[in-house]
Amino acid sequence: GGQGLPYSLGIAITEAISSANSGWGMYAGLTLGAIEAIEAHGTEQQKKTFLSKMIPGLWTGTMCLTEAHCGSDLGMIRTKAEPNDAGSYQISGSKIFISAGDHDLTDNIIHLVLARLPGAPEGTRGISLFIVPKFKIDENGEAAEANGVSCGSIEHKMGINGSSTCVINFDNAEGFLIGPENRGLNCMFTMMNQARLGTATQGLAIGEASYQGALAYAKDRIQGRSLTGAKTPEKAADAIIVHPDVRRMLLSMKALTEGNRALTYYTATLVDIVHRSKDETARQQAELELSFLTPICKAFFTEAGSEITNLGVQVLGGHGYIKEWGMEQLIRDCRITQIYEGTNGIQALDLLARKVLANQGISLNLVIDKISGDLEKLPEEFESKKILLQSALKDWGDMALSIGKKSQTNLDEIGAASFDFLMYSGYICCAWQWVKIATVASEKLKANDDAKNSDGFYQSKLQTFNFYFERLLPRIQSHKSSVDSGAENLMNMDEVFF
Amino acid sequence: GGQGLPYSLGIAITEAISSANSGWGMYAGLTLGAIEAIEAHGTEQQKKTFLSKMIPGLWTGTMCLTEAHCGSDLGMIRTKAEPNDAGSYQISGSKIFISAGDHDLTDNIIHLVLARLPGAPEGTRGISLFIVPKFKIDENGEAAEANGVSCGSIEHKMGINGSSTCVINFDNAEGFLIGPENRGLNCMFTMMNQARLGTATQGLAIGEASYQGALAYAKDRIQGRSLTGAKTPEKAADAIIVHPDVRRMLLSMKALTEGNRALTYYTATLVDIVHRSKDETARQQAELELSFLTPICKAFFTEAGSEITNLGVQVLGGHGYIKEWGMEQLIRDCRITQIYEGTNGIQALDLLARKVLANQGISLNLVIDKISGDLEKLPEEFESKKILLQSALKDWGDMALSIGKKSQTNLDEIGAASFDFLMYSGYICCAWQWVKIATVASEKLKANDDAKNSDGFYQSKLQTFNFYFERLLPRIQSHKSSVDSGAENLMNMDEVFF
Repeated sequence: GGQGLPYSLGIAITEAISSANSGWGMYAGLTLGAIEAIEAHGTEQQKKTFLSKMIPGLWTGTMCLTEAHCGSDLGMIRTKAEPNDAGSYQISGSKIFISAGDHDLTDNIIHLVLARLPGAPEGTRGISLFIVPKFKIDENGEAAEANGVSCGSIEHKMGINGSSTCVINFDNAEGFLIGPENRGLNCMFTMMNQARLGTATQGLAIGEASYQGALAYAKDRIQGRSLTGAKTPEKAADAIIVHPDVRRMLLSMKALTEGNRALTYYTATLVDIVHRSKDETARQQAELELSFLTPICKAFFTEAGSEITNLGVQVLGGHGYIKEWGMEQLIRDCRITQIYEGTNGIQALDLLARKVLANQGISLNLVIDKISGDLEKLPEEFESKKILLQSALKDWGDMALSIGKKSQTNLDEIGAASFDFLMYSGYICCAWQWVKIATVASEKLKANDDAKNSDGFYQSKLQTFNFYFERLLPRIQSHKSSVDSGAENLMNMDEVFF
Repeated sequence: GGQGLPYSLGIAITEAISSANSGWGMYAGLTLGAIEAIEAHGTEQQKKTFLSKMIPGLWTGTMCLTEAHCGSDLGMIRTKAEPNDAGSYQISGSKIFISAGDHDLTDNIIHLVLARLPGAPEGTRGISLFIVPKFKIDENGEAAEANGVSCGSIEHKMGINGSSTCVINFDNAEGFLIGPENRGLNCMFTMMNQARLGTATQGLAIGEASYQGALAYAKDRIQGRSLTGAKTPEKAADAIIVHPDVRRMLLSMKALTEGNRALTYYTATLVDIVHRSKDETARQQAELELSFLTPICKAFFTEAGSEITNLGVQVLGGHGYIKEWGMEQLIRDCRITQIYEGTNGIQALDLLARKVLANQGISLNLVIDKISGDLEKLPEEFESKKILLQSALKDWGDMALSIGKKSQTNLDEIGAASFDFLMYSGYICCAWQWVKIATVASEKLKANDDAKNSDGFYQSKLQTFNFYFERLLPRIQSHKSSVDSGAENLMNMDEVFF
């Protein structure tokens, strides 16, 4: 049954695994998602049969959503489920992009499959969720004869080649309905939301791996001299970390990674409150905040991951482009995180349409209040940064109001603003974490009673906080300009003019 | 001897070849660089021997600069050249990352190799340039016995796998001095400057290929419905080009590509003026402008190429990540352009330190005057854009002055500002081209005497111009903030704090 440890501990392990090998980490990651869906929606018998094998890692799981002709728009799914006399269903259809789809690491693979029942309504309200094991389960609960499930091919991908991403064909495979008929998409979202935080963590983790590689290289590689005079005159050249532009790259990587990591842990704690707290108000508030922060984490961390892994290659120069150094793989591995579990464009729509506008800004205002509260605790010496962020918070709320107003006459205003609004939100939430980090670091340095003071741990945090506010947070200006520019500059272009 | 066609025509061919296959295009591209170095610095005999084979494409050429321990800092080169009794030299050493380094497409490969003569001064002033053919040349001028040149390995790269990038070992290979002793780096820069424009063109071309792929997919792929109501109710879903966020991605790709293409042609024309004009003042002015614009084109187009190819994958979603679609290859092929021919960090230093500060802003002011002149011609209806760009031009000059002032007490201020200053410059120069495009398009539409009016060609240009000014140009704000923030937030970090 597992140790019952909190999600906020698990996420730290997920990060370490994803830094080591994000492709490999997906076998466990997908299994976790499937476990959660069965836990939330399965019958007692289904839980007994499947979770007893999946939680200890004896069997793995998958999520079978995408088909060749539909990904973001799951309403078009064609895979069919026909009821049979045994009370189960015969599943037929072809799914693509199935992570951890086939392998021989474990005795069985438990597919969670979206399919349509006969006569189901069209679109997303006619989709049901089924458990389809690769091997049928015998009376002792063990994997037995093959089910009608086969791997059609292994996809040839840009990266995460450690993960067997498969075309999976279901040919009259035996499956078991999980959750109510035609409510499959809702059940799948139980997996998706947490999977989105998992994907966010991958973006973070791959960025961390890139930072470690780039930092080690920048300290080791000697090339050229500091413009302000040789720093290691006894060597033929100085280490490249003396160059301001190399530092700009490293600090960008560090500031985004550490700020986003803090936000990851914070968000994971919200998951624990939602799942475990006995205080209903606390649960409801955490749920609001969690559903608001989830698309931000997913999209912002993975966009940041792309920037970070690209900077990591740049620090190594030509060597970064050579496979043996391992840095270019991180760009390739990270690139999928902007796409899967809902593209970042979909996350942006989710944030702005559902999590901001549809709930009248309740979640947004809740988060703005929290940030404002934390800003109050920031020591006086950082007054100018406090003013900067306060003003950005005001703009954040004003932008949401303005988009909401414009969208009353033109719904395309939402899609036109969504991505830049999400990126703006990401930079704000990362700044929020830096405010909290700086507050603690400042207190620790003043108290001077921590062993970490001597190795510069807290000093480093304050300097990175400063870097973030001076060099990264200003990017919100251009995102705001883009949001403010409205839908016309996108929608007035006739399709043939592109 | 070739047709003597202008460079500005050649660059259009280079773009088409690079869009088709940038890796393959390098065999011709490197040959061109080698031809130019031999033309500029070779003896009559050398020209006769080598150019007669290279210009018609019978032999290809390479540039052998980088060694395992040095790339950006060529002063540390170790490859040796020993004079022999025959008046030639014996070259020994190992070079890495040699594009088009070995192949059997042609009968001979002409390497241009940087090496040190015995007793040469240390650093960059002790490097000479040598012609080292793969096969020695017989008395009839044909390739004969093997020279001491061998391919040590083919590099395993992230992309441009159509180019055989090699480790090339020289083992007592016969070589011929080209240009004066110890002035090899200057001779090599004859190749490098033009090669930088070639690299800029690759960034542009790969972006164009990505745009074509993404646009075709966005028109073809049906998924979801427009938020403002079904656009093709007869189909199961609308084409994704109806979604504002897909349009944001496509228009970003289009606006950067078309603006940068205009700048490419403009810059190529400057090359022709420098090489061919009989008017010395025109030549000198073109030379100033060209040397200023070259690092901007190289770095800005390749940074844009990275953004564009990543957007191209994003438009395709999961399919973009699959190799068969050809979109992810464009990210990988483009990624090297930010690195080779001098990393973009080096370009940024070249721009700010050499092309702006070292010449007291003469080139910068020349370009500002040109842009201001072109802005005067922009029709009245675009007054607000004129004011925006005028203000940005003023900031551009002010930033340069301010950095120059700060650098008098701290040279690290140059490196700290360089990359963001370059990106700022890139967005301005791209905006400049859009001003010129919009001026012509506006005239054409008013005159209404062009067949292209009917297919929306000019209307499309005006709308893309508008998009660029409203959604991309505002990025200069954050680059300016970063420049203004100065060197302290980079340099005050102790190395152990990273």
